[in-house]
Amino acid sequence: MFTLTHTDGAARRGHLTTAHGIIQTPAFMPVGTQGAVKALTAQHLEDVGAEIILGNTYHLYLRPGDELIARRGGLHRFIGWSRPILTDSGGYQVFSLSDRRKVEEQGVHFRSHHDGSPHLLTPEKAVEIQANLGSDIAMVLDECPALPSTVQIIDTSLQLTARWAQRCRNRFLELKTGGQMQFGIVQGGTFPELRQKSSELTVSIGFEGYAIGGLSVGEPNDTMYQVVEQTVPYLPADQPRYLMGVGTPIDLVEAVARGIDMFDCVMPTRNARNGQLFTSEGPLNIKNAQFAEDDGPVDRACGCYTCRHFSRAYLRHLLMAGEMTGGTLNTLHNLSFYLDTMRRIREAIAFGRFEDFRQGFLQTFARRALIS
Amino acid sequence: MFTLTHTDGAARRGHLTTAHGIIQTPAFMPVGTQGAVKALTAQHLEDVGAEIILGNTYHLYLRPGDELIARRGGLHRFIGWSRPILTDSGGYQVFSLSDRRKVEEQGVHFRSHHDGSPHLLTPEKAVEIQANLGSDIAMVLDECPALPSTVQIIDTSLQLTARWAQRCRNRFLELKTGGQMQFGIVQGGTFPELRQKSSELTVSIGFEGYAIGGLSVGEPNDTMYQVVEQTVPYLPADQPRYLMGVGTPIDLVEAVARGIDMFDCVMPTRNARNGQLFTSEGPLNIKNAQFAEDDGPVDRACGCYTCRHFSRAYLRHLLMAGEMTGGTLNTLHNLSFYLDTMRRIREAIAFGRFEDFRQGFLQTFARRALIS
Repeated sequence: MFTLTHTDGAARRGHLTTAHGIIQTPAFMPVGTQGAVKALTAQHLEDVGAEIILGNTYHLYLRPGDELIARRGGLHRFIGWSRPILTDSGGYQVFSLSDRRKVEEQGVHFRSHHDGSPHLLTPEKAVEIQANLGSDIAMVLDECPALPSTVQIIDTSLQLTARWAQRCRNRFLELKTGGQMQFGIVQGGTFPELRQKSSELTVSIGFEGYAIGGLSVGEPNDTMYQVVEQTVPYLPADQPRYLMGVGTPIDLVEAVARGIDMFDCVMPTRNARNGQLFTSEGPLNIKNAQFAEDDGPVDRACGCYTCRHFSRAYLRHLLMAGEMTGGTLNTLHNLSFYLDTMRRIREAIAFGRFEDFRQGFLQTFARRALIS
Repeated sequence: MFTLTHTDGAARRGHLTTAHGIIQTPAFMPVGTQGAVKALTAQHLEDVGAEIILGNTYHLYLRPGDELIARRGGLHRFIGWSRPILTDSGGYQVFSLSDRRKVEEQGVHFRSHHDGSPHLLTPEKAVEIQANLGSDIAMVLDECPALPSTVQIIDTSLQLTARWAQRCRNRFLELKTGGQMQFGIVQGGTFPELRQKSSELTVSIGFEGYAIGGLSVGEPNDTMYQVVEQTVPYLPADQPRYLMGVGTPIDLVEAVARGIDMFDCVMPTRNARNGQLFTSEGPLNIKNAQFAEDDGPVDRACGCYTCRHFSRAYLRHLLMAGEMTGGTLNTLHNLSFYLDTMRRIREAIAFGRFEDFRQGFLQTFARRALIS
């Protein structure tokens, strides 16, 4: 159940009640692709205040297998995480296997990136896998066409996505998976009229929440913000809105300003392992020689474990030396920054001062980019 | 200062007071080669109860450099670890560069494994680097001849080691590094008379503790135990005895039984990352297919974070999937097992029941090896 507690312009604060607890929104979901957020333990995730994580159906289906996970009592129990989990449908990963998949009405044929073995992912199968995983929020299988593309191609694709969504919903209702919610996904590329059409088709089926998919795939930021702004009015105001695979800290703020409630992105975790750290003054790359003798923390405004105990000089050393500990400490910091940004967003909305927060955030976060 | 509180046969329990706190002995030192125990944060080390860690002079000298670390306030401050640190002399790593080093009276010439740059490690330089690192316990530079070798070669080598030890001590006394202790190293291969000779030469110089070096390099276990047994009587009873680079859990118990107080080894950390986990019933390899659906903990007798929260099935999945989190959880367990074994050893000595403990440990630890 989704409850809105505050609105401030288009921005909303609320909470989503799931079978494994409450998620405060707007929420950011760290990505735990293969049953672990890379370089972290469950304890770390609790320490940084993650309320929900995302699991990737494609990866877990192939290894260790959704049925094995079901026999272990489901994904929560298998990975030792008792809070909410959202699983994607596997579609996005399958569509990334550009030369190894073939889309038909029935579903998508693909070959495993592990061993080349053939698989067929149908809408029903995507629902069944996620039922085996036992996630709190399951996503429908959608087709993710590459951008840019023509109106005709995107239109054809979103209609397939809508037919798949209906099949997903039918199977979901048949399975009656206790406590699981199911979200629909709106496609439509960058065409407002197609986003409207996809929204109407998806909302008419009826889900517990709605995601905007197919963005953050290379289009300009402003285009993405515009599509979000044009799509949100067609989504139910009393249900959660999830912008998939987004984004940078500024993207989060800009999308909240347009009415988005949920996000996931590999950026904080992946970039951490490569040395890109987010700070209140903008991103920095800890590998840069300028940090070799810098005794300060990554971000003086940050209270995370990494910033409380370790210097930029040490983090740079760990990364240059290839020490896994560096990946862990950097990931802890980046996720702390993302989750703290979400806390600040929620607070600003509750105070009715989100626009002030947004302007201040854009100015301070962009500072480093201007300096360096 | 070293204080013995209990003896039980040749086994001893006590504590070593350093500038950064007290180490209970017999002690095991996790290896933090490049300023981090691989896959762990300092918090993990505190959680598993590590009282002292080892840093590798060779690696830290080359990267990020001992002078850079000195400018950061020393190794403790640089790596965010406030408890004791022992540093080796760098000799062992340099002697492992078999085709890139040349030994002379003055010291050892070698080329960096990073960039091939030429370096000269003299006894004085080894002392100076460790003074820059600011470790609590510094080791002398010794020559580590490959085994097996002839009496003549080992004899010549231990005499060089003794001359180097004197030069190390001279430089150490000149530098008057506040609070740092310096340990001598006994060599002599597997020849009892040479171990005696090296012990007498080293002890006559006078150090705060003595290490037995040059073992666990491929000789049979029984030979190692025998050398320890034959060497210990020539070391001062009122000073700590450190068996370098050893070893398996059984090695620890057997060496304590012969009067050893301190150990270091990469085995628990390196093997963890490869999936070899130590349990009260012996080692197991978590990659084995038999664990794919095993919902039990690694070791029912273990109370570590990993065993409290995660199943063998999950740990196997993480390792098969190449997730860093698996390395972290496995390392936490193996170090917990090692440090818990040391606690049990100390307790048994205090109770005057070390021989009972030893027999029981050998029987239960070897059980799995017999089964599988």
